[in-house]
Amino acid sequence: MVVAGRIHRRHFIIGAAGTAGAVVAIGANGVDAPALAQQTTEPQNGKALPEVVSWKDPDAVIVHTELTVETKRDKIGTSGITPSTELYLRNNLPSPSEEAVANRDSWEVSFEGVQNERTMTVGDLKRLGIETVAAVLQCSGNGRALFDHEASGTQWSTGAAGNLIWSGVPVRTVVEALGGVAAGRAFMTSTGGESLPEGIDPQTVIVERSIPADIAMERAILAWEMNGQPVPLAHGGPLRVVIPGFYGINNVKYVKKVAFTETESDAAIQRTGYRVRPVGVSGAPDQPSMWEMKVKSWVTHPLVDQQSGRIQIFGVAFGGNSAVQRVEVSTDGGQSWREANFVGPDLGSYAWRPFVLPVDLSPGTYTITSRATDASGNVQEEVTEPNHRGYDYSGWRRLAVDVTVT
Amino acid sequence: MVVAGRIHRRHFIIGAAGTAGAVVAIGANGVDAPALAQQTTEPQNGKALPEVVSWKDPDAVIVHTELTVETKRDKIGTSGITPSTELYLRNNLPSPSEEAVANRDSWEVSFEGVQNERTMTVGDLKRLGIETVAAVLQCSGNGRALFDHEASGTQWSTGAAGNLIWSGVPVRTVVEALGGVAAGRAFMTSTGGESLPEGIDPQTVIVERSIPADIAMERAILAWEMNGQPVPLAHGGPLRVVIPGFYGINNVKYVKKVAFTETESDAAIQRTGYRVRPVGVSGAPDQPSMWEMKVKSWVTHPLVDQQSGRIQIFGVAFGGNSAVQRVEVSTDGGQSWREANFVGPDLGSYAWRPFVLPVDLSPGTYTITSRATDASGNVQEEVTEPNHRGYDYSGWRRLAVDVTVT
Repeated sequence: MVVAGRIHRRHFIIGAAGTAGAVVAIGANGVDAPALAQQTTEPQNGKALPEVVSWKDPDAVIVHTELTVETKRDKIGTSGITPSTELYLRNNLPSPSEEAVANRDSWEVSFEGVQNERTMTVGDLKRLGIETVAAVLQCSGNGRALFDHEASGTQWSTGAAGNLIWSGVPVRTVVEALGGVAAGRAFMTSTGGESLPEGIDPQTVIVERSIPADIAMERAILAWEMNGQPVPLAHGGPLRVVIPGFYGINNVKYVKKVAFTETESDAAIQRTGYRVRPVGVSGAPDQPSMWEMKVKSWVTHPLVDQQSGRIQIFGVAFGGNSAVQRVEVSTDGGQSWREANFVGPDLGSYAWRPFVLPVDLSPGTYTITSRATDASGNVQEEVTEPNHRGYDYSGWRRLAVDVTVT
Repeated sequence: MVVAGRIHRRHFIIGAAGTAGAVVAIGANGVDAPALAQQTTEPQNGKALPEVVSWKDPDAVIVHTELTVETKRDKIGTSGITPSTELYLRNNLPSPSEEAVANRDSWEVSFEGVQNERTMTVGDLKRLGIETVAAVLQCSGNGRALFDHEASGTQWSTGAAGNLIWSGVPVRTVVEALGGVAAGRAFMTSTGGESLPEGIDPQTVIVERSIPADIAMERAILAWEMNGQPVPLAHGGPLRVVIPGFYGINNVKYVKKVAFTETESDAAIQRTGYRVRPVGVSGAPDQPSMWEMKVKSWVTHPLVDQQSGRIQIFGVAFGGNSAVQRVEVSTDGGQSWREANFVGPDLGSYAWRPFVLPVDLSPGTYTITSRATDASGNVQEEVTEPNHRGYDYSGWRRLAVDVTVT
């Protein structure tokens, strides 16, 4: 909401309730941007890193729960790649035990809905083919904290996103080796290898996601390497599905089955979960699924008060489902815009790019934000309309930060 | 030396002698390639990681001494970036204390030999400008172990090299802000901020390197970020000189002075050290300095015995001082070659690129190696002629590995 030229936001307090990712947001209005900026750059609680990511940099992240860890907004610099030690964590179920990565090459995955169905090991897949792609990994709920309504789930600000380099075998290559997709299979349905809690209908908890088969054949890879290392257990190793341009939830971890199917999975996570619908409406299969990401950008510096003079405004921008083409920056809350420069190598259509705009700022208060445009001409939206679960946030107005220059 | 179609190499045993990087190589001939491959993929000793790099992955590196740590050959995958946790370490002097990075932005560096000489902090530099570049960092002695003669120094195989993304301010931008280079200054001379041992002439131990001023103005940056994180102390943080295309020694760590000078530094490390000369000859200023790197590549998989069938041969290739253009792979010790494919994003002229060649191998023994060509048409050399200190190794013949397929 915009009041008299200033941007007001929800004030939120993060508290964990159990280990299942249930985080309660306590809403209150009227707190301005610096409070939000501060909040994203300082630890919000004294929680220790979850055991499965004990190797992450505790100073770079905010621990929400045992299954959700956020990258601090000011830790994203201008290199373009998110180091594994700073990458967010969002797991729907606890990771398998370390045994899963004790002998990575022996991990098995079955392929169904192809001409010649069979089970292959990671070792087998490594002999088939190799492709490397840089891609943004972003949680569907990244930015949930910026909505007015109190959607349930972790109250992510900007930090449930990272830019990673993945290596693995293209799904296309595997399918070709297995004789091609069987007739009439419109979806690729991937099943995660997490242990399911007992006494519950598996369909209500299993991580099983479907995406269009043509997208899978075009760009999906089965990845064993992330940023030059074996995919960490917490991030889906020994083998993870990577769908560049698609939200994180589709990038199934510990993948144990890849099936080409006639219909989408009946698992709750696909049928009713991750569906965009109006606030108060239940999830249903006819609502849009959280597949393609949208064009988006945000500033990561400056977030706090600055001395006057030359200041480098920087941040990251991506096109989501297509390449980012340009980024504009505003220091007056969107009244005027200047085009920023991309810095560093272009890592490809599905990667984010750091952008920089040098500005000379005299004393005053500035509302700084950025607005990206993708190669198809889609412009980052100003306001993201509320939806029940607080998905798909990209509005530049609430991604703004207020910075006082003295 | 090639004997009857087989490639023989030195067998070397690595043992530390003190903490100053003095490592003794014990030579013996007649051991074939698999022995070398094994040696580079398994820990050679039980040494603990030096304290300053205690955060590195102990399974990914070989600890030579307190100041020298090597990346294992088989840890380089196909992502293109070397994670900090796997990056080699080669320091000429111990790193400054952690205090140097307690408040990174307050680190001071003086600029001399410019129109308006002054001292600036890292905080000042961060306001001036930002550039991001991917570049290979390689120790001058990388491959020393592959020479026949026993050059003193750490016996690196392939692992004193990595590919990093650096962010910082271009030297050009700083110099322009200071009114330009003073007349007649042909070199940029950078001085490291290490504490010097007492009771020794500082000129004999100080880390101070000169490079041509035009190269500095064209491409040097003063970097505060490496792979998306503040440059780790062990790798030169809070501020490091990065000269893309030039050997590691020129990338002065903890830089405290950047001077444009009429002549090269008189420090021993510049005057007589890092000079290429025949075996037995002392270092002197008229010999080539270890500046530009050469075109080079090596295979990182497979290094050990394989089952027959389809195998993905992969490795990394770079042009050194210019972009790499193509890589060929041989499985018969260089009698025949096939062109490999690059995979993943092109990170720019000074970066390395992963390459992959799928081959179908029946049982037998294969001598696998790679040969890169840069954009200027320079082809990776077959044999690197011996030089006194064992610098500048790039010969493809001894970078080969023998792999038995069963």
